[in-house]
Amino acid sequence: MDIAMIDDQMLPMAELAEPYLDRGLYFGDGVYEVIRSYDGHLFAFNEHLARFDRSLREIQITGVDIESVRQKVLSAVDRAGYENAKIYFHITRCSEPRNHLPNEDMAPNFLMTVSELEDDPEAKQKGIAVSTHPDWRWKRCDIKSLNLLANVLARIEAQKIGAGEAILVDDDGMITEGAGSAFFAIDGKEKVVFTRPLGHEILPSITRKMVMQVARNAGISMVEKALTPHQAATSDEMFIAVTTKDIVPVVQFDGIEISSGKCGSITKRLMDEFQAFVRAKV
Amino acid sequence: MDIAMIDDQMLPMAELAEPYLDRGLYFGDGVYEVIRSYDGHLFAFNEHLARFDRSLREIQITGVDIESVRQKVLSAVDRAGYENAKIYFHITRCSEPRNHLPNEDMAPNFLMTVSELEDDPEAKQKGIAVSTHPDWRWKRCDIKSLNLLANVLARIEAQKIGAGEAILVDDDGMITEGAGSAFFAIDGKEKVVFTRPLGHEILPSITRKMVMQVARNAGISMVEKALTPHQAATSDEMFIAVTTKDIVPVVQFDGIEISSGKCGSITKRLMDEFQAFVRAKV
Repeated sequence: MDIAMIDDQMLPMAELAEPYLDRGLYFGDGVYEVIRSYDGHLFAFNEHLARFDRSLREIQITGVDIESVRQKVLSAVDRAGYENAKIYFHITRCSEPRNHLPNEDMAPNFLMTVSELEDDPEAKQKGIAVSTHPDWRWKRCDIKSLNLLANVLARIEAQKIGAGEAILVDDDGMITEGAGSAFFAIDGKEKVVFTRPLGHEILPSITRKMVMQVARNAGISMVEKALTPHQAATSDEMFIAVTTKDIVPVVQFDGIEISSGKCGSITKRLMDEFQAFVRAKV
Repeated sequence: MDIAMIDDQMLPMAELAEPYLDRGLYFGDGVYEVIRSYDGHLFAFNEHLARFDRSLREIQITGVDIESVRQKVLSAVDRAGYENAKIYFHITRCSEPRNHLPNEDMAPNFLMTVSELEDDPEAKQKGIAVSTHPDWRWKRCDIKSLNLLANVLARIEAQKIGAGEAILVDDDGMITEGAGSAFFAIDGKEKVVFTRPLGHEILPSITRKMVMQVARNAGISMVEKALTPHQAATSDEMFIAVTTKDIVPVVQFDGIEISSGKCGSITKRLMDEFQAFVRAKV
């Protein structure tokens, strides 16, 4: 008889509950999104749904109705009732006995959580330290997949040395992005913000896109260019951007003080402009 | 109130069952092994346990007693009662609300399945077709982790063109290994078997190691050297090796017939020697 074992509990395989057969668990065979609301309004909802749809197509999960995902998000957010909510959802290919090659007849699994977004005002005011780590991720970081072990390991290493984010560096010695954020460095004299160009090496971050729009609206130049850690470390200001926190100043990079250890003036301006942009948009 | 949603079912987050909080599901934050038995005897059990222990250490999952894993495997295999069993098990870091940075206080999750191993005599007799695919995997393929989406996607593409395995090719144009197997090509005249050297680019396959031992015992040279797809396609024989099937001949490579479309003589000899080796060892 086929047998399963969960921790110390042995049971017939036939009694193994469906979540233990999820291809998301065995292969990370799924894609996800994280969305937030500001004051009861979902931010960049369409953009996140469009990216999710693309991720699904890139890994060939078919038969998902994005409009039904939209309705699920709306109903769960409504039920949760938070002014500032953090919404996580993923779709995995299906549940079935483990085999690399999927069975095409099985239905995808949907999972979502909605929780209250906890702001981190100290990080936003004082800035954070970051540290570099080799970018061990796969070659399709443009797909927002559940294969995130490289990100987790980089974040664990960063925390060991007191850094709040790991900045990933590829084999060519160029910064790609943060383990869970987009990365930006600023030439204060020229008023130019640098960030890595889109490609298979980074996530097409929606917050990154919004930051670029905000910067251009404010007359600050955005240049998409990969930087070395040395170039970053000698820049005048630095910040990361992520859906759940938008812009967070970086004041230390691999132990080197950036912007005299304080949030820089261009970063501060972008943070203010981003907030105004959010309020106008939601 | 924090809300969760599973498919169409909404529920309070507090009622979300533990498997839905598994870091294996959200991040692929875990490592696994596949072991088989021959005639009621586990093959290379110690080697698999040692590799599992190393994988755990490499991703910094601590506090797992490998002897307890050994006992669990033995008890489940005994309960299943199969002469030829396939044993899959993994350990994930823990279950907790999703956050890249793990909570160090949580206990790891163990999951195992034991099923009857289904032999594929046709593949072993007639050989299989393989096709190349870019190696999209991460940079630590020496860790047997749950981040397997690149392997799954390569296998899906292979199947579309009728191939039974995808042979992965790195950015330098060199073959690494199969999506779920080790890869070997043979120079029949010189009686030399080539396979990629160990490193971060491939799994330290236990079947690969056993094949090398068997070949050397039989007076067949093994050379650890990376090959291009062209070098492989012009070789005299070819095979893959994986725990659940040991040696499987390859008779077509990217549409090119290998070894006149039949299992080659050196491959056949290695298959026979491998079986003798297994019987002597278990």
